[in-house]
Amino acid sequence: MGRIYNFSAGPAVLPEEVLKEAQEEMMDYRGCGMSVNEMSHRSKMFDNIINEAEADFRKLVGVPDNYKVLFLQGGASLQFAQIPMNLMKNRVADYIITGAWAKKAWKEAQIYGDAAAIASSEDQNFSYIPDCSDLPIRENADYVYICENNTIYGTEYHTLPNTKGKLLVADVSSNFLSRPIDIEKYGILYGGVQKNVGPAGMVISVVREDLITDDCLPGTPTMMKFKTQADANSLYNTPNCWCIYMCGKVFKWLLNNGGLEAMNAANEKKAALLYGYLDESKLFKGTVRKEDRSLMNVPFVTGNKDLDAKFVAEAKAAGLENLKGHRSVGGMRASIYNAMPYAGVEALVKFMTEFEKENL
Amino acid sequence: MGRIYNFSAGPAVLPEEVLKEAQEEMMDYRGCGMSVNEMSHRSKMFDNIINEAEADFRKLVGVPDNYKVLFLQGGASLQFAQIPMNLMKNRVADYIITGAWAKKAWKEAQIYGDAAAIASSEDQNFSYIPDCSDLPIRENADYVYICENNTIYGTEYHTLPNTKGKLLVADVSSNFLSRPIDIEKYGILYGGVQKNVGPAGMVISVVREDLITDDCLPGTPTMMKFKTQADANSLYNTPNCWCIYMCGKVFKWLLNNGGLEAMNAANEKKAALLYGYLDESKLFKGTVRKEDRSLMNVPFVTGNKDLDAKFVAEAKAAGLENLKGHRSVGGMRASIYNAMPYAGVEALVKFMTEFEKENL
Repeated sequence: MGRIYNFSAGPAVLPEEVLKEAQEEMMDYRGCGMSVNEMSHRSKMFDNIINEAEADFRKLVGVPDNYKVLFLQGGASLQFAQIPMNLMKNRVADYIITGAWAKKAWKEAQIYGDAAAIASSEDQNFSYIPDCSDLPIRENADYVYICENNTIYGTEYHTLPNTKGKLLVADVSSNFLSRPIDIEKYGILYGGVQKNVGPAGMVISVVREDLITDDCLPGTPTMMKFKTQADANSLYNTPNCWCIYMCGKVFKWLLNNGGLEAMNAANEKKAALLYGYLDESKLFKGTVRKEDRSLMNVPFVTGNKDLDAKFVAEAKAAGLENLKGHRSVGGMRASIYNAMPYAGVEALVKFMTEFEKENL
Repeated sequence: MGRIYNFSAGPAVLPEEVLKEAQEEMMDYRGCGMSVNEMSHRSKMFDNIINEAEADFRKLVGVPDNYKVLFLQGGASLQFAQIPMNLMKNRVADYIITGAWAKKAWKEAQIYGDAAAIASSEDQNFSYIPDCSDLPIRENADYVYICENNTIYGTEYHTLPNTKGKLLVADVSSNFLSRPIDIEKYGILYGGVQKNVGPAGMVISVVREDLITDDCLPGTPTMMKFKTQADANSLYNTPNCWCIYMCGKVFKWLLNNGGLEAMNAANEKKAALLYGYLDESKLFKGTVRKEDRSLMNVPFVTGNKDLDAKFVAEAKAAGLENLKGHRSVGGMRASIYNAMPYAGVEALVKFMTEFEKENL
């Protein structure tokens, strides 16, 4: 069988061109006689790979000069501690709870200080984004924290919170590079790359330079000071070289395909097709308040568990994979990241239409 | 040009068969229609990959049932903090300083408690392993820490220290899987995989179960408790999936090639060839006390910086790469890990012999 349509929430589909290039270069990277898998991170060849990846990322996103771009290990889960360790000077931070990941980040911050949940959508199983226009943000809050796209629940901030002048920190793991980003609105914007950017095993963190200091909480591991990696251009120790290489290829693919504006347009078109169908369907329905719908993760249900399971199984047999929803929501979820072609969403909607006819 | 002989200290040469398999599977892993780079870490396919990797590792090494095998991110540098955070119940630990990495680990442990250097070979630029038969190990020491093979200096413990009943913790990053390991001698044995095992971006830590508790130092990030990853079989969050997959292939390659006994024999044969030549050479000499020589990393010098540079450049032109020594030792260093074939060392010795004739 050939390549299937992979609707996984992450790790997730990558551009076929990127994988093909990696395949071609596997035994011998551009005539150097070795694989990137074998390449010293201190070599000139790898220097070119990491420097080009950073330059392309900066160009793609439009990262201002006063922000550092860091390639880090440990996933968002390690950032949940790293952020308070680096930023919680007053030991006070305000969290907006829009799902399981925001909640985990909040719980972790409580290890380090007074982290408060200043808004939450847990009352309706995180199916909406709370009104963030006038939140009770504390005077001495070191930062306000959000998870900008909620992979499990399929919600996304379409307007950033009013932080009343406080620093905004955002986890963008599941909508990273899906649309233009105005970096200056953030103190830190970070994301695990394994959803919309590259293979698993790396976080990209964009950190405003004035936040990078030696003045971290007592007991902060050297590796978890942003300063350690910022001073070393992410090469304090051996990084995830393969992931940097693959993400670099994805950045070039994005630049060659019109950048983040074009990606946003393509993502809106894909989402419109799927949400449009859901709004008309008599069998399937979306689970998220319309104005808060994610362009990336689209959960939907039939309301009948057996029918949901039948759908997931038959879709898989038809080459539409990983459509099972997260247990917290149930039903189905289609993750339609940058690398999911329009044809993939068309195939899904066609399959849903047929399934509806047969099962309604 | 074809594949060269890569003498890099790490990331380093991998078995050609492993890379070829990864190349073949890049677009479509075993008929599943996707790349391992795109595969959910919660999928059955990836479950098979990680479970098989762990089972093969256990078989290869002979890991007793009361030890956990953890696949972690952040490199040895993050372990330098993770180890005291998990083990330093009395806030006392004894370190043996045999090089830059042992020293960094010791400095990091000082953040968390009273970490003492109970022996050191810094007086002679770390060119030997100190006598560890009767060290001043403290009564209340939580553990004794060593770096078992010193990549930069080319030394290796051939006898483990007498820890007087205290827990032994060893960083084996650069001799991992190069010879049989008696796990029961260690409380924790860990190594970054990027030298002798797989691509960069992962540490394998083998931890005795009784050391895995919730009772870590205050302020320990959730991700840095061994218990977090042990309870989740290294899947608490998204791991470095590619690296687990590639290491799994290397474990199979090792098992198919006679396991660690056979690997040790092959490594001794390679090292004997190179050290034998060095001992006879009138131009080159080894920098390490003979009884402490590493089977993995072989530093040597001519005593003339210009000649060293000429050698490195001419060797590179002849397809023998990454022979430049670390700046702390100077001269040259040949890293001859498991995946370096005997023919590679033969080619190196032949080249050195010719260079000696022309330049003596």
